[in-house]
Amino acid sequence: MAGTFITFEGGEGAGKSTQIRRLAARLEGLGLEVVTTREPGGAPGAEAIREVLLSGKAKALGPLVEATLFAAARIDHVANRIRPALDRGAVVLCDRFTDSTRVYQGDGDGVDATTVAELERIAVDGVRPDLTLVLDLPVEVALERIATRRGDEHPDRFEGEADVVHHRRREAFLSIAKAEPDRCAVIDASGDEETVANRIWETVAARLDLPTESHPAEAGHG
Amino acid sequence: MAGTFITFEGGEGAGKSTQIRRLAARLEGLGLEVVTTREPGGAPGAEAIREVLLSGKAKALGPLVEATLFAAARIDHVANRIRPALDRGAVVLCDRFTDSTRVYQGDGDGVDATTVAELERIAVDGVRPDLTLVLDLPVEVALERIATRRGDEHPDRFEGEADVVHHRRREAFLSIAKAEPDRCAVIDASGDEETVANRIWETVAARLDLPTESHPAEAGHG
Repeated sequence: MAGTFITFEGGEGAGKSTQIRRLAARLEGLGLEVVTTREPGGAPGAEAIREVLLSGKAKALGPLVEATLFAAARIDHVANRIRPALDRGAVVLCDRFTDSTRVYQGDGDGVDATTVAELERIAVDGVRPDLTLVLDLPVEVALERIATRRGDEHPDRFEGEADVVHHRRREAFLSIAKAEPDRCAVIDASGDEETVANRIWETVAARLDLPTESHPAEAGHG
Repeated sequence: MAGTFITFEGGEGAGKSTQIRRLAARLEGLGLEVVTTREPGGAPGAEAIREVLLSGKAKALGPLVEATLFAAARIDHVANRIRPALDRGAVVLCDRFTDSTRVYQGDGDGVDATTVAELERIAVDGVRPDLTLVLDLPVEVALERIATRRGDEHPDRFEGEADVVHHRRREAFLSIAKAEPDRCAVIDASGDEETVANRIWETVAARLDLPTESHPAEAGHG
């Protein structure tokens, strides 16, 4: 495949969607075609499955049904959106991908690693990220950001048991990054948007073979 | 598990649902608890997934998404309906199960055997039929029955390419039965309902360790 596949992973409140928009703008400024997408969903059939997933019905059914529904949606997303974009040379930026399934339905949440790996194999059909950016944030900072976003100064609902869950997920993302250093980079997501965007850009520029200046032929398009 | 799990398989028009009702009545007459169910669906979450499957959206997405959605629905069906019924000693009669996935999404329809087998392993979680009744009918007879059911005397729509598909599926069901003779029995589904019901009863009585007469303790329940 001619294109470049970059996934963004990490817990809630790490700023994934904001940073995807910023990176997309920067890459487009270089004259590159950028496709931004997110899971679950990203293609018509996957969106239909997303409705079942987000209706709350799936969550009540337990992590294995959920993981399998994510896999079904991912098959469609990969086949009908990600792979075609990569085939024509685009940069695809995806908000959550297989690592989120590993962390949210796998690690500690009941689905065994063999099953998670097998569903991943079935779903991605050989399409694996060239680079995965794990946006990492201390759990306390992430919870504060989420509370602010919700307009709630007292994030009590995220305390107690939920706190343990957030810590466990953060560790799970970091351990994936540690186990696959060639694919993954941990990005310190603390600080303001601009600071984090610069950290991401440095990593992308260092890791991937992308043009670092505006392509002359594309200069007139801006 | 204390109960008995019987699945009914075969193409359209073989009379599965009619024969399930008749067998259920006969088993209930022996004082047994009988649970009849069908796929896809059979449990609340599975029914939500069934809606996606039958909306036509899934079919447009191709057999792999479809097979994965069937697996997701089956996880729920097995966990929340089939296994609990078997655990309390019931006889479960299920209209279509894993063999239909093998035949409809696997054999000849694009999903490789490894993936079909892996999705089956994930979905059934060790719950396998004690007996699978493959209701077998010459394709021409099945198509006539379907046409009659639809009130159409000229079943042209089932001719041509579709005919080949029906023949292929029939062969696929027969080859599963041949490969797993301990689990499967091929039932000649031609003839009237009563004749087929008697063939099924003979097979069930010969294969399974079920009471053959009314249980005295249950006599007052009728």
